[in-house]
Amino acid sequence: MGQSLLLLQLVVILGASRVFAYVLRAFGQPPVIGEMIAGLALGPLLFGALAPGLHAQLFPPQSLPVLAGISQVGLVLFMFIVGAELRMPGGVAAQLRASSWIGGFSVLLPFVLGIAIAPWLHPELAPAGVALLPFALFIAVAMSITAFPIMARILKEKGLAGSALGTLGLTSAATADVLAWVLLALVVALISAGGGWYGFARALGGLVLLVGVAFALVRPAAAALLRRHAGDGKPDGTTLALLLLLTFAFAATTHWLQLHAVFGAFLFGVCLPRDDRLLDTLVERIEHLSVIVLMPVFFALAGLNTSPDAFVGMGLSAMGVILLLAILGKVLGGAAGARLGGTGWRDSFAIGTLMNTRGLMELIVLKVGLDIGVIGREVFTMLALMAVITTLMTSPLLGWLLRGRTAASAGNRETQSV
Amino acid sequence: MGQSLLLLQLVVILGASRVFAYVLRAFGQPPVIGEMIAGLALGPLLFGALAPGLHAQLFPPQSLPVLAGISQVGLVLFMFIVGAELRMPGGVAAQLRASSWIGGFSVLLPFVLGIAIAPWLHPELAPAGVALLPFALFIAVAMSITAFPIMARILKEKGLAGSALGTLGLTSAATADVLAWVLLALVVALISAGGGWYGFARALGGLVLLVGVAFALVRPAAAALLRRHAGDGKPDGTTLALLLLLTFAFAATTHWLQLHAVFGAFLFGVCLPRDDRLLDTLVERIEHLSVIVLMPVFFALAGLNTSPDAFVGMGLSAMGVILLLAILGKVLGGAAGARLGGTGWRDSFAIGTLMNTRGLMELIVLKVGLDIGVIGREVFTMLALMAVITTLMTSPLLGWLLRGRTAASAGNRETQSV
Repeated sequence: MGQSLLLLQLVVILGASRVFAYVLRAFGQPPVIGEMIAGLALGPLLFGALAPGLHAQLFPPQSLPVLAGISQVGLVLFMFIVGAELRMPGGVAAQLRASSWIGGFSVLLPFVLGIAIAPWLHPELAPAGVALLPFALFIAVAMSITAFPIMARILKEKGLAGSALGTLGLTSAATADVLAWVLLALVVALISAGGGWYGFARALGGLVLLVGVAFALVRPAAAALLRRHAGDGKPDGTTLALLLLLTFAFAATTHWLQLHAVFGAFLFGVCLPRDDRLLDTLVERIEHLSVIVLMPVFFALAGLNTSPDAFVGMGLSAMGVILLLAILGKVLGGAAGARLGGTGWRDSFAIGTLMNTRGLMELIVLKVGLDIGVIGREVFTMLALMAVITTLMTSPLLGWLLRGRTAASAGNRETQSV
Repeated sequence: MGQSLLLLQLVVILGASRVFAYVLRAFGQPPVIGEMIAGLALGPLLFGALAPGLHAQLFPPQSLPVLAGISQVGLVLFMFIVGAELRMPGGVAAQLRASSWIGGFSVLLPFVLGIAIAPWLHPELAPAGVALLPFALFIAVAMSITAFPIMARILKEKGLAGSALGTLGLTSAATADVLAWVLLALVVALISAGGGWYGFARALGGLVLLVGVAFALVRPAAAALLRRHAGDGKPDGTTLALLLLLTFAFAATTHWLQLHAVFGAFLFGVCLPRDDRLLDTLVERIEHLSVIVLMPVFFALAGLNTSPDAFVGMGLSAMGVILLLAILGKVLGGAAGARLGGTGWRDSFAIGTLMNTRGLMELIVLKVGLDIGVIGREVFTMLALMAVITTLMTSPLLGWLLRGRTAASAGNRETQSV
């Protein structure tokens, strides 16, 4: 019975994703946003409110670990592909400097704003027994996340993935993510472990070590393997299996370092040799299935963790303030960083808008917060809706800021579509 | 913690699959057999016996539903691809007649032999409270299964997938499977429900109806969709998503009919229009990931259900008899059917040998038997080992029977490799 439930859940999740993606396309939104909203709609806010009995039958609590496992496999594979597709076009040094400014400011400003409003939210919205400091730190981190993978999908769907602007956005998001995730690891270590500084040092030291191993040992070994077994750009079954094995091994390592599995998968993708033919094959063989089948499961799981209690009491006003500060912090912080890095005004705001995309990563951070008990389902819901709204804004704002510019004039290398 | 365990489990499962596939390649076995044996080796018979503490930590019972869910998704996707790849070369009518003879005899003979030995096995090996009739029927069905997907992989890996012999084997296996699964549905209905004939009629009637809907309605609709959105043989994201949604919907339907999800997925694959370019793309986008990541999880799960108790008491002699009769029943039954269908002697034995491949399907049937309680873990283990041994025999026996014949002379259309 459990297994037929899984099939039914998948049919409902994939069906809802298609319906919402279709509807949102009419508003010029990329499919990924429709899939995210479909996931939230499958939770108690919409489906659960309309048909509580059916909802309880279709998504009983004991069935959720299975969906969680499937969504984790999808996330790891997706992040591997995102890493493998990352390209550094000319002017790497300038790019790195600019992306450090952007990444730094677009984390710092929302972080400070998050700390600032936490004392106001804490009395009514923190779970019983959670002190102000960990709650404030978590809210601050949650506001400073940028959704690397969703930004990547938006850029791909707008045909900007290979453009200078797109690459600057992605490298900045990577910088911001590492920063925000290190902060998150610290917060998690502070809360769930005892020794915050030990956890911090272990996570950061472990990551540096893993990056060293990836580029000094794994990269040349992978290059040799691929030269031997994938000379025509089509790796054989065994080679592909080894690459996927390493993907999961890297993911398990960073998860063990409390830096989340997605970082390991991304790192392994990044450290592979840049060979377009090979990577096109990898994308073709891995990305479609993870994007189409496995990611919608992740979104649905996030939706199942929302709660309508978020709208009672001070809920609505709290959500309004969180949303406003989240947007201001990211857009202004990102734009300020880009200006300092030498980008023109309009592109700086485009970068700020891109950094405001929180979608998927935010949902992961929120899940971590819920798991360790530093936030309840009400704050989870507010921040999840904030994530959806800031992500929804990205496409129209970006279109408006870049109006009159075609993908080609933005320096686009090739038009990619998923 | 649960989620980092899943990553670790995947690393161990994928790593073991690679090691065993590598070792067995030295003996001329296709990788799939190495993966199957790796799965069984991860159970209590090898890994659990060598390092019981570590084994219990890595595969605690509460972690198994997640692995089961992942393996089910993989199985459904794999069977969809197997169906989509099925081709009927010239002489369909003759082929169907021949495959009916082969399918019929290769189910009937092992079935009768299974019924014959059940009274001897029942007193010591049936779980307490299970009567002789359901036990005998289940043993009989379990002996008459042919592993359609593993046969497909062996044929592919031997470059025989498009040959006349390969196609005859696959269509016969499909015939045998439908027969055996209908028998299984009857047994399951007899045991778990009350009214056996109602369950039988519902499963068979439902299947006939679903086949009608698939070919009369779904096939033309899919053809129209693909003509519009995949004119270049590369379906866009939305089209691929719709195809996968329908795959899971078909799988959920046959599961609901108690005919197992794999049949629905296979049926949907079969009913798609035969367009080589389109199907090559589907294979490229779906098959690799399901074969490399998801199927090894299925094998590991089977391994975790084995028990060393299978070798105490009359266990070893029971296993020997089961193995001998399983082989004789399939090879002689299949060969007799092929001869009656007009195939030459040597090819008839090659067909019989192919029908003796039980691997994956057998493991599914055994899982069903274990779930409804008609067999215990001892009989599960015996039949699982029988499945591995009969599958291991296929490649060398086939090579010996077809010695001196190249893939090309066997009527091979193209060399495919996974």
